Formats: sequence, structure tokens, C-alpha cells
Amino acid sequence: MEHIFPEQRLREFTHNIFKSIGCSDEHAHLSADVLLRSDLRGIDSHGVARLSGYVRLWEKQRINATPQIRVVHETPTTATVDGDAGLGLVVAPFAMKVAIKKAREYGSGWVSVRNSNHFGIAGYHALMAVEQDMIGFAMTNASPLVAPTFANERLLGTNPMCYAFPAGKYPPLIVDMATSAAANGKLEIAQRLAKAVPEGWIQDGSGNYTTDPHALKSGGSLLPLGSDREHGSHKGFGLSATVDILSGVLSGANYGPWVPPFVAFMDPLNDQPGQGIGHFVGAMRVDGFRPVEDFKANMDNWISRFKNARTVDPDQKVIIPGEPELEAEADRKLNGIPLVNAVVDDLNLLADRFGIERL
Amino acid sequence: MEHIFPEQRLREFTHNIFKSIGCSDEHAHLSADVLLRSDLRGIDSHGVARLSGYVRLWEKQRINATPQIRVVHETPTTATVDGDAGLGLVVAPFAMKVAIKKAREYGSGWVSVRNSNHFGIAGYHALMAVEQDMIGFAMTNASPLVAPTFANERLLGTNPMCYAFPAGKYPPLIVDMATSAAANGKLEIAQRLAKAVPEGWIQDGSGNYTTDPHALKSGGSLLPLGSDREHGSHKGFGLSATVDILSGVLSGANYGPWVPPFVAFMDPLNDQPGQGIGHFVGAMRVDGFRPVEDFKANMDNWISRFKNARTVDPDQKVIIPGEPELEAEADRKLNGIPLVNAVVDDLNLLADRFGIERL
Repeated sequence: MEHIFPEQRLREFTHNIFKSIGCSDEHAHLSADVLLRSDLRGIDSHGVARLSGYVRLWEKQRINATPQIRVVHETPTTATVDGDAGLGLVVAPFAMKVAIKKAREYGSGWVSVRNSNHFGIAGYHALMAVEQDMIGFAMTNASPLVAPTFANERLLGTNPMCYAFPAGKYPPLIVDMATSAAANGKLEIAQRLAKAVPEGWIQDGSGNYTTDPHALKSGGSLLPLGSDREHGSHKGFGLSATVDILSGVLSGANYGPWVPPFVAFMDPLNDQPGQGIGHFVGAMRVDGFRPVEDFKANMDNWISRFKNARTVDPDQKVIIPGEPELEAEADRKLNGIPLVNAVVDDLNLLADRFGIERL
Repeated sequence: MEHIFPEQRLREFTHNIFKSIGCSDEHAHLSADVLLRSDLRGIDSHGVARLSGYVRLWEKQRINATPQIRVVHETPTTATVDGDAGLGLVVAPFAMKVAIKKAREYGSGWVSVRNSNHFGIAGYHALMAVEQDMIGFAMTNASPLVAPTFANERLLGTNPMCYAFPAGKYPPLIVDMATSAAANGKLEIAQRLAKAVPEGWIQDGSGNYTTDPHALKSGGSLLPLGSDREHGSHKGFGLSATVDILSGVLSGANYGPWVPPFVAFMDPLNDQPGQGIGHFVGAMRVDGFRPVEDFKANMDNWISRFKNARTVDPDQKVIIPGEPELEAEADRKLNGIPLVNAVVDDLNLLADRFGIERL
């Protein structure tokens, strides 16, 4: 059912595909790095499995392989970036570099991005700040799949938000989460296995809970974090709205139901109010608030206290946000990255098309 | 069961109580304003009902009525404020003013606060920025009541986060939410009425879901937003951790289980790593990203689209974040603020004690 590939092999393959659609060496390298980081970290839904999707959007001329990414508006600590319809995989790191530069000079930097595309995992971008002893923020809006509380239409994406904090002896603490009850990747896995999903993840076309993972194809929707009003779905809706406004409304990108679909076979709506997909990234210098060493010592104390918390099941400890991804990264760097056959076949079709060696 | 009071009457009463414990005119006025705003907005758990709690903490010398609030560290756009153990009701607005001033000059401003106390509703502080055509952020850590996913101890507060955005013809959009499945105020109401709570709000001392609202008194805990792992409680935990780190770890306040209890009859832990309770507030100029009028026009379009969404029940429209509080404010400004008898009795005990006219 799956093959295991060394990281470097997939990295070269991915780099070559991006070169084949016309990306510069620098952009192909960076895009491959973002996707491989996702595969290494065990977030299989956002890694090389998406490669053929990016190519299909490029074919439809919805992704520009040679974008002129630029700052179109700024103050000392804020900026709006126009991604020129480029890969979010290169647009978001560009924006994060602007944020980090501003933070280095003024303490913090915040960049809203329009006219972009899917940016991979939010954590990649937020971690760029952490490497500079800054706190990193990254979020993006996304194709509409989620119904707000009480609604019976898909008006919001799974709109992830990421907050990343440097620590001392421990690795960084990284909160990287979809603001829906379940990420779309989890739903896709259930669809592939034809397996029922828990109540509270999705509603059917009539607005009732359903366990049918295919309900989205017949008018259903993903539900916001909290699942229903009684359990706080209005909070998940509020968080998703926050991501949508900071990413889309603030930058001049599309928002809500107008965010362009990630899939090439669905066309964007005709009456779009903005340009492309939006992101929002930020960086704050830790030493803008207190000495880095003091902060890191307290972070270590925080993490240690939570790791050693009393748990319901003594064998199931509290999981520090970001820990499972770090464990996956250590394992996969050493032992390789597993890809299911369907993904390998998909990638080999790309290889054949562009005359690149098959996996 | 309840009496209705004109806003102004409660405002004067509250002002007089704060004066009685030694607050300056300015601080008494501001503190009363924060509490009354909460009562007006229908958030009864955070209004004058808390007044006797503040007085009890002052009696225990855990609240300083005459604090020297000051900036102890700063860059052009970041600062750390020491609240000198003052009322959070005055410390947080001080911090927000610093953030707004920095935002006016440099585009954004971010202030982490230590050595403070309960700051009332987060929305009050975030709205200070909105009045300046800025986006407002406010969060605070709080007494430990919530168990992280898998844990069986209370390590986090209900740690609210608030994001507030100006709009054009519509009122501001305000996301102001506890990061737990249910706010503690909702639990207190259920306790008062001896009414079962929904599964997914709390766990008992053994870590099982319970509907007993009193389970917190016998070793139980509130649950993070998401309720259980399958429905994303690790996300609620991650959000709560984010609030705790930005408010507590970044400022040098206490964090996690060390956050001092809001109730005077429980003493803070002996081995506190920081000072008091922590907050985090921020402001970003909208025109640091795009012209204010463009942003507001798009906000209006966003709000209008969501208000007119197709809903499961045609009679239950989508609720825009912040809308119910605005409706309550309009109603209560006109018709007065209802207080349950228990709160009136409690306030009248304070009146007797300080020689102030009873309600």
C-alpha cells in the first residue's frame, strides 16, 4: 500500500517538477523545501501529495510560476504584499522575511498578503521567526468548506492559524491548527477508506450531523471547531472569521465564499471582491518584551510542568503542541518518508509528462 | 428574582465602592466603566457581580488600589507593563493606550502585562483600538480551571482571546471568547440553578465526562474548546496555551497552574514563577495595510454576506460575532440592567460596610 522514499530523493523530484513548470531555481528549491517539511513532519495532506494539484492550477493559469512578488503598501511595522498569483509556497516566505526584517528594526512586523495561492503548512512560515528568537504567527484563508454556526452553506475555509514560540532546552512550542472541528485532510483519509467519521465533524445537505465522509459532495459542510452551538462552534466560527479578515479583507484578497477553490476543476466565482487567496504573517522579537534567556527558561518550565501533568490514563501523557510533528520529523529524516501508492502513481504521471525520472 | 437598575445608578454605586477602597477618581471612573460596559453588553458574569470579589482581594492585599503602573521594557512597537498589583480594570486600559500610541507612530503596538489582576471583559480593551480605526487584540490568562487534553488536573484558565475589527455601516465585528468549551460564567449559572450541563463541558475527578455542574468542587475540570481529542480539544488547549504564553511567559507574570486564583479564599501557590496575572494587548492601524474606507467597505460586504447566509432553520440567521452583545447594549442602555437578587444583596452588604446608599 505504500513505499518509503529518502527525503533527498523526494526533494530532488519535487524541485524538478517545479523547475518544469517554469519556476526559478530559487523558487523551486523553496517550494520543495516547504512541501518536504510537511511530509517530514507527518502532515501528509500538505506535502508532495499536493504537487499535481499545484501543476493543475498552473495549467489553468491560476498559478503564475514566475511571479513578481512585491510590497504594495507599508508602514515601519506593517505591510501588504501582492503575490502576483504565485505559489503560496514562495509568497508566504517572502512576506515572512518582510515581517522579520521589520521586527528586527522596530520590535514587530505584520504582513497581510493578497493574490496568493495555497501556502502549504502554516508552521513552516511561523518557524522562520522562531529561528530568529522571535514569536511567529501565520494564517491563511482557504477554499470554502465550512458552514458557520446555524448556516447551511460553505462560507469559510478550514482557515488555519499558527503560533510558534521558541523554547530553551525543549524544541519550539507550535500551535498549528485548522479552525474547523476536523482538518480537511482527516476527512479525505476517511473518504479514501470509506470509513464513518465522528459526529460533530460534518453536517449533511439538510444541516444534520452525519457520519458519512462523502456528505460534502451532496451539499454538506465541515463544522467549525466546537461542532455545535452548545459546545462552542460559534467560537470556531469566530476564529475562522478572524483568519479570513486578517488574511483576506485586510490585504484585498478574496474572503469567505469567494476564496478561489484549491481544486482546478472548480472555477472561482465570477463576482470576486479581491485577488487570489490571502495570508497573514507576523513576527515579534522576544527581547522586545524581556530578555530571551528569561523567556526561554520560563518556556522550559511551562513545557516541563505540562509534560509532567497528572493524566487520566497514566500511559497517555499530555502532548505539547508541535511535539508529534517533531517526533515524525526525527523519524522520517532517518527512516524516509512513506507515500501511499495513489500518491506515487500521481507523481509518476507528472514525471512522465515532464520527462523526469519516475520515483 | 431580579431588579432592574438604570445604568447611571449602578455606575455611581460602583464608582463609590472603588473610591471607598482607595482608588483615585480617575481609576474609580475607569473601573466602573469597564464593569458597566460588561453589564450593558449582557455579560453579567463580568460586571458589577464581581465587585465584591475585587474588594475581597483588596482586603487580602492582593489588589493594590493605588498602583504605579509603568512600562518596564520597550522597543518602538513592543512593551512590557508592570501593573503594580493594580486592578486589571485600570492596568489593561493603560497597556492598550501604550499599544495604540505605538501603532499610531509605527503601524502596530503590542504590550505584554505582568503583575495585574482580573481585567473584566477582553472586548472593552480591544474596542479602544477599534475607535481609532485600528484592529484590536486583547487576551488574559486566568485562574486554573481547565485540564489540557488527556490531563486530569486544572492547569489553565478559561483564557479568553478577543479580536475586534472596525466596519463601515455595520457595528464592529468582535470575537471575544473563552478558549474552553464553556465559559466559567455559564457553569456558575448551571450551579446556581442546580441544572445538568451538556456532556463535553467538564470532566469529573476521574477524567470522565459529567453533567454535574458541581464536579469542579470534587477534583473535576473544565474542558478545552473541542471537548475531546476526536473533536479537536487539542486545538482549544493550543489556543489556551497561546494566551497563557503571550500573557504570562512573555511578560514575566505567572502562567499555567501558578496563575493566582480569582477568589480571595484560595491562596496563590507558594512557588510562583512570576508576578500576578498576565495580559496581552495589541493594536494595528488598518491603514497600515490598505485605505480604511476600502477595508470598511469589504467588512460590510463580509458581514452582509454572512448575515444573509442560507441557514438550517430559516428563522435562525447566522449571528455575526459581537452582535448579541450590541443588541443587549442598546436594550439595557434604554431599559436598564437586570441584577439577580443574590447580586443585589451582595452589593448592599458592600454599601453597608462602606457607608454608601443601598441599591
